[in-house]
Amino acid sequence: MRKVAIIGIGQVPVREHWGKSLRELAVDALWQALEDGNRNEIDGLVVGNMLSGTLSEQEHLGALIADFAGFPGVEAVKVEGACASGAAAFRQGLLAVASGQKNCVAVVGVEKLTERSGWHTTSALATAADADFETSVGLTFVALNALVKQRFMYEHQVSKEQFAYFPMLAHQNAVHNPQAMFRKPITIEQYLKAKMIAEPINLLDSSPIADGAAAVILVPWDDVEKNSQAIEVLACEVGTDTIALHDRQEMLQMKGIEISAQRAFATAGITPQDISFFEPHDAFSIMTVLSLQASGFMSAIEALNHARNGYFTIDGTLPICTMGGLKGRGHPVGATGVYQIVEAVLQLRGAAPKAIQVKNPRYGLTQNVGGTGATVVTTILRRKD
Amino acid sequence: MRKVAIIGIGQVPVREHWGKSLRELAVDALWQALEDGNRNEIDGLVVGNMLSGTLSEQEHLGALIADFAGFPGVEAVKVEGACASGAAAFRQGLLAVASGQKNCVAVVGVEKLTERSGWHTTSALATAADADFETSVGLTFVALNALVKQRFMYEHQVSKEQFAYFPMLAHQNAVHNPQAMFRKPITIEQYLKAKMIAEPINLLDSSPIADGAAAVILVPWDDVEKNSQAIEVLACEVGTDTIALHDRQEMLQMKGIEISAQRAFATAGITPQDISFFEPHDAFSIMTVLSLQASGFMSAIEALNHARNGYFTIDGTLPICTMGGLKGRGHPVGATGVYQIVEAVLQLRGAAPKAIQVKNPRYGLTQNVGGTGATVVTTILRRKD
Repeated sequence: MRKVAIIGIGQVPVREHWGKSLRELAVDALWQALEDGNRNEIDGLVVGNMLSGTLSEQEHLGALIADFAGFPGVEAVKVEGACASGAAAFRQGLLAVASGQKNCVAVVGVEKLTERSGWHTTSALATAADADFETSVGLTFVALNALVKQRFMYEHQVSKEQFAYFPMLAHQNAVHNPQAMFRKPITIEQYLKAKMIAEPINLLDSSPIADGAAAVILVPWDDVEKNSQAIEVLACEVGTDTIALHDRQEMLQMKGIEISAQRAFATAGITPQDISFFEPHDAFSIMTVLSLQASGFMSAIEALNHARNGYFTIDGTLPICTMGGLKGRGHPVGATGVYQIVEAVLQLRGAAPKAIQVKNPRYGLTQNVGGTGATVVTTILRRKD
Repeated sequence: MRKVAIIGIGQVPVREHWGKSLRELAVDALWQALEDGNRNEIDGLVVGNMLSGTLSEQEHLGALIADFAGFPGVEAVKVEGACASGAAAFRQGLLAVASGQKNCVAVVGVEKLTERSGWHTTSALATAADADFETSVGLTFVALNALVKQRFMYEHQVSKEQFAYFPMLAHQNAVHNPQAMFRKPITIEQYLKAKMIAEPINLLDSSPIADGAAAVILVPWDDVEKNSQAIEVLACEVGTDTIALHDRQEMLQMKGIEISAQRAFATAGITPQDISFFEPHDAFSIMTVLSLQASGFMSAIEALNHARNGYFTIDGTLPICTMGGLKGRGHPVGATGVYQIVEAVLQLRGAAPKAIQVKNPRYGLTQNVGGTGATVVTTILRRKD
C-alpha cells in the first residue's frame, strides 16, 4: 500500500442552491479541487451521494459527473453509506490510489436536498434507518436521535440546557467561514426558546437540510512530498453497527464509532491525545457528545462539561467544528464527509480563515456518521513534518 | 497488488419474490456463498444495488446487510453504477483484497424491482439516463435502446428478424438453468408476433424486470491456490462514456465498452480469441450485437450472422449467455453483474448444468453495462491451469 496525499480541495458554499443543478454543484467543486491541486487530468472518480435517485430522479452519478466534468472514459462510480456517503467515497478513492491502481483520483461528495418539499426530504433521509422495522412505524431521523437523547438524559440525569453549548460553539466558528450556511452566533436564550422538533431535540440542536458539493484530489504521496500544500492521509477506517437502534445491546454505546475510531488510531499509530482538532458528525448535539466518548477522547459527561469551559474552542485543548460543523456549515448529507476533509486540509495547511485557524495543528481527525451510527468513517490527516 | 480468487458463490433464483424482502434475498445469497467457500467470517462487504432507495425506501444497504447477515462491525458500503452496479461493487471488493487491506470480502448484488407497480419501476430505471436532458422529455430506458436500434437498422440495412436469434439462444440455455426466470424456449414465430414495446424493440428483445441476489467471496489467491474450486480474477476494468446518448459523436460506437474491454484484455494479457465464453449484457438484443463489436470479438454484422449459424451456442466457437443471459435468467439490475460472475465461475469450475456446460473453458469474460453504455465493467476470470 502506498502513502496517499490530498493535493487539491474544492467546495461550493453550503446553501439552498435552487438555481444550480446537482451536476453543476459537483463539477464546480471538482474543478476547484483540480485547480487548487494544479492538475488537469484524473484517472478515477468516486462520487459520494445518498439521495439523488429519490430527490432528483438521477442515479448513475459516477458516469454523469465524469462526463460533465470533461473526463468521459475515466473509471467512475458512486458510493453510498447514508449520511456517511462522502467519507465512504473518500475511503474507496483512497484504496484506488493506495493500491497502485490509480495515480490521480477525484472524490466528490454532492447532495441536493432542497429539490423537493420538506416532507419528501424527511422521508428520503429516513431511508438511512431500517425501513421494515423503524421507518415503517413512523420514525423519522430526528425522532431516532431524540430517543437516544431521551435515554442519555435519563441515564445521566442531565438537562436539555447542557447541550446548548455545542450548537453555540459551532455557530461561533461558522461566522468566520464564508462557505457556511449559518454565519451568525446563537445565544443560550435563543437555544432555550427554540422550537421543539422531537422532544428533547429542538431546532437549534439540529443541523440544517442543505445543498452542497465538496471535492478532493488524491495522489501518491511520493509524487508530491515536496509540495507544501500536500496533506497526508494517515488513516481512513470504516466501522458498522446494527442499522436499527432497537437491535443494539446498549443504545448509548455507539459501537460503529468505537470500531471505526479504534481502527483509525491503530492504522495511524497515534492516540486521541495527539489530535490537534476534531470534526465530529454533529448532525444533532447528542451525536457530538456520544462520539467524543466513543472515539476515546473523554467520557460523555466530561464532554458536556467541557462544552462550557472553552475546551472545544479554536484556542482550546481540542477544537471541534472548527468551520461550523454540520450545525453551522450545513449538512448536505452525501457531501458532508468530504466537506469535513476539505476543512481539515485547510486547517492543516494553515489556510483557514484567521479567526478560526487552529494554532499549528499537526493531526486532524474527521468523523462521518451514517444513520444512527450504523456506518462510521474516521479519517486522520497529517501535516507534513 | 495481490492476485485475487473467487472462492465461494451464491445465488437465489431470479423470480418475482413477493414474499421475500430485499435483505432476505441478499443474506440468502451471501450465506450460500460463504458455505460454498467454506468460510464463516468476512472482513469486508460491498453491496451492489441501484434502486432500493426509490423502490423499497431503504438506503444504507452496506450496514443493513452486514447486520442481518450476522457481521455487524465489518466494513460495509454500497456501490451504484446503474445497471452495472453489481460488477462495480465487485470491482471495489477486488481492490480491497488486491491492495492487501482485506483478506475475505463478500460482494453481494441485490435488487427488488417488483416491489412497486410497473410504472414506478420504469421511472426508477430511467434514473440511469440523464434526468435533465433525456428522461425529462419522456424517454424511458427501452425507448433509448430503441433509438440506438433504429439507427443501427438504418445504417446497416438489416431487418428486425435478424435480432431474433439472440433471445432464442438465451432462452434455449435458460431452459437448463434452475435459477433462471424463463425456462422455456422461444421460436422465431413467437418473436415475430411479440408485442411491440418501443419500435423496433419488442417484448422478446427485452430482458425482464425481476428480483434477485447473487454473491461471491473474494480472498487472496495465495491462500487458496491448492483449492480446486478457486477461480482467479484476471482483470476487472471500468470504462465510461457520456451519460446522454445525444452527446456521443457516434451513437453506435459504445466507447465505454471499448475502453472497459481494452483495459481488461490489457490487464489480463490475453486477446478476445482466448475467451472460452462470453456473458454479455443482453438487456436488449441490440446491446449484445454492439458489445460483441465494441469488445473486439467481431463486427456487428458478423455478430448478427453468427447468431443463426451456431457460433454462439454452448458447443459453438464463442458460447454466449450460457445460463440464459439477462433475457432468460432475468435482470434484477444491481444483482445482474454478480449473477454473471457467479455463472462464469460455475462454467470455469465445470459445475454448470450438464446441457449448458461449456467444454473445458479456460477464460470467461463477463460484461455489465449501466445506462446506454455510460458505465461498463468487463471482468475476465481464469480457471486454474
